[in-house]
Amino acid sequence: MNKGLLIVISSPSGGGKGTILKELFKRHENLRMSVSATTRAPRPGEEHGVHYYFITKEEFQKNIDDGAMLEYASYVNNFYGTPKAPVEAWLNEGKDVILEIEVQGGRQIKTVAPDCVSLFILPPSLEVLEERLRGRGTETDEVVRKRLAQAEGEIKCLRDYDYTVINDTVEQAVADIEAIITAEKHRVSRDETIVERILNHA
Amino acid sequence: MNKGLLIVISSPSGGGKGTILKELFKRHENLRMSVSATTRAPRPGEEHGVHYYFITKEEFQKNIDDGAMLEYASYVNNFYGTPKAPVEAWLNEGKDVILEIEVQGGRQIKTVAPDCVSLFILPPSLEVLEERLRGRGTETDEVVRKRLAQAEGEIKCLRDYDYTVINDTVEQAVADIEAIITAEKHRVSRDETIVERILNHA
Repeated sequence: MNKGLLIVISSPSGGGKGTILKELFKRHENLRMSVSATTRAPRPGEEHGVHYYFITKEEFQKNIDDGAMLEYASYVNNFYGTPKAPVEAWLNEGKDVILEIEVQGGRQIKTVAPDCVSLFILPPSLEVLEERLRGRGTETDEVVRKRLAQAEGEIKCLRDYDYTVINDTVEQAVADIEAIITAEKHRVSRDETIVERILNHA
Repeated sequence: MNKGLLIVISSPSGGGKGTILKELFKRHENLRMSVSATTRAPRPGEEHGVHYYFITKEEFQKNIDDGAMLEYASYVNNFYGTPKAPVEAWLNEGKDVILEIEVQGGRQIKTVAPDCVSLFILPPSLEVLEERLRGRGTETDEVVRKRLAQAEGEIKCLRDYDYTVINDTVEQAVADIEAIITAEKHRVSRDETIVERILNHA
């Protein structure tokens, strides 16, 4: 059995990543979503092992020291990151694992797991992104402007990624991601024994 | 407009490439099939510019000297090869161009056009290939054995290619090739202006 694919997905806030991922998971049983670890306290309704692994700062630091994190970052005095073990276990079972992550983390993953596939989900334009952020009706003007400035910075990191998917319609974006996953599974470099398998059956 | 994709396809004889390509061309208007040049005489029914460009040895040699061939080889005292100009014209128009070629030629293309996408269409096993060759009922036992030995040699060149497609059913193989083409069109490295396009529309 071939190992699963590690799929890194980033997108600016408002890029529509959530809806796309929900649809992908609905269609593909073989997909798993990586769960992040954090040192911040759980919010109401958040479950350990579902939304996050909630661990102490000491545990997190030990994981870092042991090389047990695929990537991590600190933000407002707390650690956030991706534990290696569950991801590797799924990959070895042949499951494809999606890692939803911001651009800094995406870069770190490429260095420790160069055979991952990285996707950047883009809005068709910054104008559309602005419309979507305003359309929610929940953000103040200041928050929208902050988000747009942040998105602009993130989009400039696009060149670190393998593929871009434009989120024009959810249907099209999901189909594009499915094509990318299918194609990557046909890469010669991902299948070490293919020549022997074909020839030895003769 | 983005340039088209140059798609190199190789397959051992009996691999079922012909049926797959016919189906692909039926479905995709944007595809073009590269026409080879040769110095051999046309056979009955063969048309210049359709099956081959039939040219003289002097013309072929001049093309080689002028760097006007993407790849070429000589076989039983005749030259065969791919003229560069029509392929480049199509790519510049945004058409995707398929180059059906044997493994030696495939290698040459990768060195002159490193951004091409190369696919190797494989039978599920050598046993299946043998069944298919014998199933035609037109080849002698000796020819079948020769073809199998040749196929084995060709399959060993598989590692020079980007992707493999197993021809188990035509439907599946065509779908896999479509996914590979779609994915390659989403590669960040193939779109030099994407960051600017997204940001400048703001």
